[in-house]
Amino acid sequence: MSYFDAASSAPLHPVARQALLASLDEGWADPARLYKEGRKARLLLDAAREAAAEAVGCRSDELIFTSSGTRAVHTSIAGALAGRRRVGRHLIVSAVEHSSVLHTAESLVTAGGSVTEVPVDRTGAVSARAYGEALRPDTALACLQSANHEVGTVQPVAEVAEACRAAGVPLLVDAAQSLGWGPVEGAWSLLAASAHKWGGPAGVGLLAVRKGVRFAAQGPVDERESGRSPGFENIPAIVAAAASLRAVRTEAADEALRLRELTERIRARVPQLVPDVDVVGDPVRRLPGIVTFSCLYVDGETLLHELDRAGFSVSSGSSCTSSTLTPSHVLKAMGVLSEGNVRVSLTPGTTEEDVERFLAVLPGAVAGVREKLGAGVPAAVVKEDSLVVDALGKRCPIPIIELAKVIGDVPVGGTVRVLSDDEAARLDIPAWCEMRGQEYVGEEDGYAYVVRRTS
Amino acid sequence: MSYFDAASSAPLHPVARQALLASLDEGWADPARLYKEGRKARLLLDAAREAAAEAVGCRSDELIFTSSGTRAVHTSIAGALAGRRRVGRHLIVSAVEHSSVLHTAESLVTAGGSVTEVPVDRTGAVSARAYGEALRPDTALACLQSANHEVGTVQPVAEVAEACRAAGVPLLVDAAQSLGWGPVEGAWSLLAASAHKWGGPAGVGLLAVRKGVRFAAQGPVDERESGRSPGFENIPAIVAAAASLRAVRTEAADEALRLRELTERIRARVPQLVPDVDVVGDPVRRLPGIVTFSCLYVDGETLLHELDRAGFSVSSGSSCTSSTLTPSHVLKAMGVLSEGNVRVSLTPGTTEEDVERFLAVLPGAVAGVREKLGAGVPAAVVKEDSLVVDALGKRCPIPIIELAKVIGDVPVGGTVRVLSDDEAARLDIPAWCEMRGQEYVGEEDGYAYVVRRTS
Repeated sequence: MSYFDAASSAPLHPVARQALLASLDEGWADPARLYKEGRKARLLLDAAREAAAEAVGCRSDELIFTSSGTRAVHTSIAGALAGRRRVGRHLIVSAVEHSSVLHTAESLVTAGGSVTEVPVDRTGAVSARAYGEALRPDTALACLQSANHEVGTVQPVAEVAEACRAAGVPLLVDAAQSLGWGPVEGAWSLLAASAHKWGGPAGVGLLAVRKGVRFAAQGPVDERESGRSPGFENIPAIVAAAASLRAVRTEAADEALRLRELTERIRARVPQLVPDVDVVGDPVRRLPGIVTFSCLYVDGETLLHELDRAGFSVSSGSSCTSSTLTPSHVLKAMGVLSEGNVRVSLTPGTTEEDVERFLAVLPGAVAGVREKLGAGVPAAVVKEDSLVVDALGKRCPIPIIELAKVIGDVPVGGTVRVLSDDEAARLDIPAWCEMRGQEYVGEEDGYAYVVRRTS
Repeated sequence: MSYFDAASSAPLHPVARQALLASLDEGWADPARLYKEGRKARLLLDAAREAAAEAVGCRSDELIFTSSGTRAVHTSIAGALAGRRRVGRHLIVSAVEHSSVLHTAESLVTAGGSVTEVPVDRTGAVSARAYGEALRPDTALACLQSANHEVGTVQPVAEVAEACRAAGVPLLVDAAQSLGWGPVEGAWSLLAASAHKWGGPAGVGLLAVRKGVRFAAQGPVDERESGRSPGFENIPAIVAAAASLRAVRTEAADEALRLRELTERIRARVPQLVPDVDVVGDPVRRLPGIVTFSCLYVDGETLLHELDRAGFSVSSGSSCTSSTLTPSHVLKAMGVLSEGNVRVSLTPGTTEEDVERFLAVLPGAVAGVREKLGAGVPAAVVKEDSLVVDALGKRCPIPIIELAKVIGDVPVGGTVRVLSDDEAARLDIPAWCEMRGQEYVGEEDGYAYVVRRTS
């Protein structure tokens, strides 16, 4: 098997495994106790905090361990908002944050606060200017990921942090995808991360809160982790997290070069090998290991299944692969095609052979899915002066496949209406037009998408 | 070293260790993913849930894993209160619950809800009748531990559950101390527990919510664990938790007999070996491994230190061992002596030799601390018709030591006033009177405690 989904979770790093085993026997006691076993546990915890803080680039008394990256995000947003309650209840997020950030923002809105979602360009990047413009006198907190988890685009954190600093607003950086590669630059105020993303164990998140940042921990009082993270500390996992962070950092520069070359190869060759593909995300300002592309006329779930059978584990932002049947909010915010979406995220150690084998397998897998799906006859009828494709009740990528089949029948300058009640059509029909050089006219009645043939 | 603090945290059970190691290689991927590694992780998670549910005595779809017992408690109370918001915002707890329950109750009061704290008797037990009387039409939830963590007293959960059931109020049982010994009897509605208390790893709590119990998870939306426990699942730790729970259960009947005999030995022999000792907690309805006693005229912190030097790790509910310098709320609610308090909680596998060695070491340790503390001359003066001991600015156990020194100078029927600004005196002076057969008259001006010599 080739595991190409490091952005979801990385396999345990050998150093994490070693450190976990080594500390199982010394790290199980309560570090708050004064007897021998407690003191040993406390020493391990303190040393892990020192090591993690050094890797984050903060003081050890600014860093706490949480039970996951999601908890680190929830805790940091809740604490920072409460700490600045007098300023206001306005939160700024980018449109492509991790769901843990966006769901916390939704909670704030439900509770009567307000949220500004800063849009991104087609590469998935925010602009520091747009962040600056979103800052208001009642802004309590701004959040920005260091790099995007679905397309790998690196965000201008240092510039956004500077805009926030000038306005006196703290910036929370979700560094989940990038912390293994290096510290986050710039004057951030809070930082959240997750150990299993860099090859540490599950069950450990990091939360750094710079001295001077107003922070009021929410929820019932608990003395653990400076009162910011309730529950008994999982010391063996914390030790493993800190040790593996140091280990991946020592390998980071070399691995970054190597993986960047491999993902560059996928970026360049997939469009040559597979017709009708859209490679998304910033081609330059990006994480070393992530490359994402979408294949027209392909059902993401079936493609993932085919790749899994061929020994490749990848993920997808296509609507058919989500429990809610809506496309990834990241692809949506970028305005790019979501159908047949594939995210390849390489773990350190991925070999050139793995990637070459993937490039050898992919074209056949895509062609197979297209063949299977393309068999149907489009239900196209001429209605008044316009061609109508009735794809109601049909799911992505069928509406696009049927559109593609009939566009040749439309005279240049003429239009075709695609009727679709699939949420993905709203994103994918305009994206198809962009890719194929056709004009997207607009949406009618919430289910009819009008396309004009221009070439 | 003899580790006698299992009630804080148990060393990792060999089965937990094995299961953890075995699942590190298969349990690191995202169980929500459909590729091979994700499916393997899902299988491990599902199997662990089945095993844990069987041990708890619930259906597997009623059980979720949290990141700690504390989180299980926080989540269960918040969810049950929100689920029954229309009924009211009244919560019932016992006065001797774990701090995670009591701190959640405090949060409810801060947020405008109300809490009834059901008192306990001198053994630390609640009465089912008192629980029944606390039930009100606006009671949203009642909470009761299965057994007390500081003195080992078993609570009448089945009877309380019956009273709650009759009133249509759900009962949350905090089973942290007892789940390794057996399932909780009775018609409970919610149950919380913590794996590291039974020899499982840190980082895993259990929360069972019976079908039909109204429950509304709080906090930002997250799809993990039926939407009730946010953050990436720590599958290796969950597998280890479930496996070790099964393992300790198969050993539970034999170990319970064995440990009960050992703790009975401590209960019986400590008062013979050490003068002026109060063994607390129910002598019969108690957990097998816990025995707690308090030693007059002893400073708990110094005694713990002496025992640690002799190779024994125990804990204490004395005020001097807490960061807030207040005695344990459990001892306070029981109205028993808190000074020189020692909790011995044995891990399965503790040998008779360990216990005999403890009984050999304890008298000398207590005598040493008493000698050190007893050297001072009491600052007693006759003032009007009553003796006054000025112990202002002195910490537990000095006020009691000075009281004991002067009581012989008071004629039978006469009184002595002890002036003390130490919080522990409020509990320990009445407890001393009870133990020594003197009359506690009462408190004056919040710092003068009046004692009448009766014998």
